[in-house]
Formats: sequence, structure tokens, C-alpha cells
Amino acid sequence: MTDRFKGRLALVGLGLHDEKDVTVRGLEEISSADVVLSERYTSTLCEGAISRLSETTGKEIRTVTREDVEDASVILDTAMGKRVALLVVGDPLTATTHIDLRLRAARNSIETVIVHASSVLTAVPGLLGLQHYKFGRATTLPFPQEGYLPTSPCEMILENLKRGLHSMALLDIDSENGRYMTANEGMNVLLEMARKLGVAGDISGETLACVVARAGAPDCTVSAGRLDDMRLRDFGPPLHTLVIPGLLHFMEEEALQTFAGVRELPDDEGSDPPI
Amino acid sequence: MTDRFKGRLALVGLGLHDEKDVTVRGLEEISSADVVLSERYTSTLCEGAISRLSETTGKEIRTVTREDVEDASVILDTAMGKRVALLVVGDPLTATTHIDLRLRAARNSIETVIVHASSVLTAVPGLLGLQHYKFGRATTLPFPQEGYLPTSPCEMILENLKRGLHSMALLDIDSENGRYMTANEGMNVLLEMARKLGVAGDISGETLACVVARAGAPDCTVSAGRLDDMRLRDFGPPLHTLVIPGLLHFMEEEALQTFAGVRELPDDEGSDPPI
Repeated sequence: MTDRFKGRLALVGLGLHDEKDVTVRGLEEISSADVVLSERYTSTLCEGAISRLSETTGKEIRTVTREDVEDASVILDTAMGKRVALLVVGDPLTATTHIDLRLRAARNSIETVIVHASSVLTAVPGLLGLQHYKFGRATTLPFPQEGYLPTSPCEMILENLKRGLHSMALLDIDSENGRYMTANEGMNVLLEMARKLGVAGDISGETLACVVARAGAPDCTVSAGRLDDMRLRDFGPPLHTLVIPGLLHFMEEEALQTFAGVRELPDDEGSDPPI
Repeated sequence: MTDRFKGRLALVGLGLHDEKDVTVRGLEEISSADVVLSERYTSTLCEGAISRLSETTGKEIRTVTREDVEDASVILDTAMGKRVALLVVGDPLTATTHIDLRLRAARNSIETVIVHASSVLTAVPGLLGLQHYKFGRATTLPFPQEGYLPTSPCEMILENLKRGLHSMALLDIDSENGRYMTANEGMNVLLEMARKLGVAGDISGETLACVVARAGAPDCTVSAGRLDDMRLRDFGPPLHTLVIPGLLHFMEEEALQTFAGVRELPDDEGSDPPI
């Protein structure tokens, strides 16, 4: 770190699946850090990945809690006069909480360094063979709280559908209780939202849905079909991601048939070819 | 590869900047490959990165041309009975051409394996401190061809702006001629499109623009300001990415002020807080 700064915090992305999804740059940051911290509440790697990363790098990796990241003072105090690497699953700046942490570091004259990594946001469209520039706004489907189910994610998906665009729906994570929403739960939540909004004609059991399970893992699977069929399937262990496609280009149709095992596709006119 | 397949093609993402942005999984794929190919027309790493990757892994890395990737037969013939690693800058399935290649491999009973990596699509919003779920559809600004300038990218940005959403505008690459569109060229192209469309009231010199230069590199810079100021600035060597933000949440405003050096922000009501 230079004289301008009182400490150095590297946000090191771990990518999608296990200890092998970190980059060479990320390994260097971990190896040269005085303290290595890991937060696991915004997402998670597979079982044992952090321990194996600790063995590979010979570094002790301390888990920090959600409160530690949100409050930030523990992490920033640790970074005073030191090099700290905070390990974050996926790309390190996709969650608001890490942008907030970076802002707090700046206010405390702590230099931040970002080590990018793979993310579901980019990986999932590609695995399905869907074009990135045809995705509208992304959303997250939350676990229903007792007596409360917001409908805004369904509204966003509807808005995308009306414009012929694909929608990525991330699925809620409650890592403190070890709960990762399955695609099945997500599809049920989406259908419930559609009923509540009175738009069950637009998003229904007939709607085409795609599921990517364990993106980036050797046992990653991609599937597509009608919501009513898909919500009964078993996609295996988490993490899952749901995509509701809009109008499909013929190459996207072929990709869903080839890689996602879809047999029948909705009868539409098809959309414009890629630019 | 299993008996079902006649060959194995690994699409290995190289990430954003240099030979250190490949993952451990990617290095393993390269090291175990019989043949390592590299295509550089959809994007590029910094000077010398591929040579250094070749030295690190002890593997010869052969460059394939745009025609080789688009026609695919050279790559697929090479993969018959062998393990081939095709190196792709960024995440390996963000360009149509690689999805097409994967489909052709499937038709030829060649197994494909995807090694994910970092991508501008995920990195750029985070570096600016902008929320991913507030981005609308992404677009690409093309080099103007003699006498022809499509206006659809400007229309897409306008549509996002009207809905309060951010827009990512990727900048054209003509790697065969070593031309990488600068953010300055991109901003001029966008303003020209707006004039042509007669919407210069909506996208003008007063519009707020953000530029990320060399995302993922140690000398990465992020900047923001009015288009008329920004298009005169020097952002240094490529690659550049342009973002036209929509309504800003207060944390996004603070991030642009802290990291992108913006002084004045447009006077608006602000948008809803993050979900």
C-alpha cells in the first residue's frame, strides 16, 4: 500500500463452485495477505471448498459473519496497517453490501483492490445458450415471509416478457439457516405472485422456464420446459438459478433443445437475429 | 472423454486483463490438453499475456482466426480423438459465435466443457458501484460504416433511461485491424445516433456517462461526468466500456463520487432503495 492509505483490503472473488474457481491473481492476493477472511452469507461454494483453499494456500481463513460485513468495523479495523483479503463467492462487487464495504473502506483511508471472478450473472445465460443482450432487468425471488409476498419480481419478469426479453431470477439465500431456495420453490413463488397479481394468463404453468443447477460445477445441469413440468423435477443440490426466456432466436431454440433437453417450444414468430 | 463422445473441447475463459485472470480450473484444462488454441477476435488480453500463459503452462498456444472459429471445422477436426482447450477472453459463452461452436461440437459428438471466468458484463457495474438489478438491456456501439449508422443501440439506451434503468454499452472491436473503440469514439457515436433519431433532448452533452477503462487491470480507471466533458478526456489504452446510468440510488451516487470522481450529479428525486 502507498502512504496515502492506512491499510489494504482486497476483495477476492472466488467464482462459482469450488476452490479451483479462484484466479491466479486471487491466489497471489491470498498468499500475500496478512489476514484472510471469508464471508459466506451472500452465496456459498460447495462443501469443503474453503478448507481446501486454506490447505492449498497454507493460510488460515477466518469466517466473518453477516453482521461483520454489514457493520464493517471489524474488517476495517483488521485492515489498519495490514493487508487483508476478504474472500467473496462469485464476482466480489455484485452485492450492495460489498459496495457499501468498499465505500466505508474509502472513508477510512483503506485502499481497496478488486480481484474479479466468474459470476452466475454472466455464466447462466451462456450455459443456456441465451444471448446476454436479450436479457432485461434481473430480479431475485425471495423466500415468502409469513403473510407477506412481494410481487415486484413477477412484475419485472412480466415487463421483460412483454418486450420479448429474457429474465434472470436469482433465488433467495438464507445461509445462516442453511437454506438455499431451490428452483422448484422459486417457480412456485413466481406462480403464486402471478396469481396474486391477477396475471396468471401471462405467467402460468404453460410458461417456458429454464433452470441452471450448480453453474460452474462439473455436475452442472441445464433444463428447460413448461413451468408445470419443471416445478416437479429434481434438479439436485443447490445453487439453482431460474430464467424465464422471452422471444427465442433460432440459435437459442437450438441451444435449449441441445443442452437443456427441451422438446416442445412455444409457437411464436421468433425474434430478430443477433446483431 | 467418455465413449459417447469422439473428442473433447474445453472452452476456457481467460477473464479480463492478463494471464493471471485464468482460474486454477482453467490452468488444469490447459495443462492436460493435447492442443491449446487461442482466439483473439471477440476480445483481447493485454500485450504479451498469451505468451506468458504459454511459458507458465509449458504449452504451445496456437492462434486461430475468426474464420476458424466461425467455420468451426478446423477446431472440431482437431478435437477428434483429442483434448482441445480453446482459450477465450472473458467468460467463454458471452458471444454468439462460441454458442454456435458449442452447438456444432454437439452435432459432431464432441463433448464440450466450460471453464467460466470474469467478464466485463459483471465486473463493470460493480467497479462503478452500480447495482446489477438496475441494469436494463445491454447493447454494443458499432464502428460507423461508410454512410451507415444504425440507431438501435441509442434506442435501447433511451428505453432503459425512460424506465430509470442503467445501460451498459460495449464498444466495438475490430481486432483484425487492431482497432478497439475508445469510450470517446463510443460517446461521439452515441450522440450522433441521438441526433439522427431526433432525440438529442434525451441524450445530449448534458447526459451523465460513466467509463471503465481496463476493467480488471491494476491500472483500471473509472470515471463519470457529463458526456460533453467526458468525450474530451483521455482514458488511456483500451479496453473501455461505457455506461449510461438511469436513476441513481444514494449509495450509487456516493460510489460515483468516491470512485469515479464525479462532482455534480443530475438533480433528480433518486430511485427506490435496493430490494
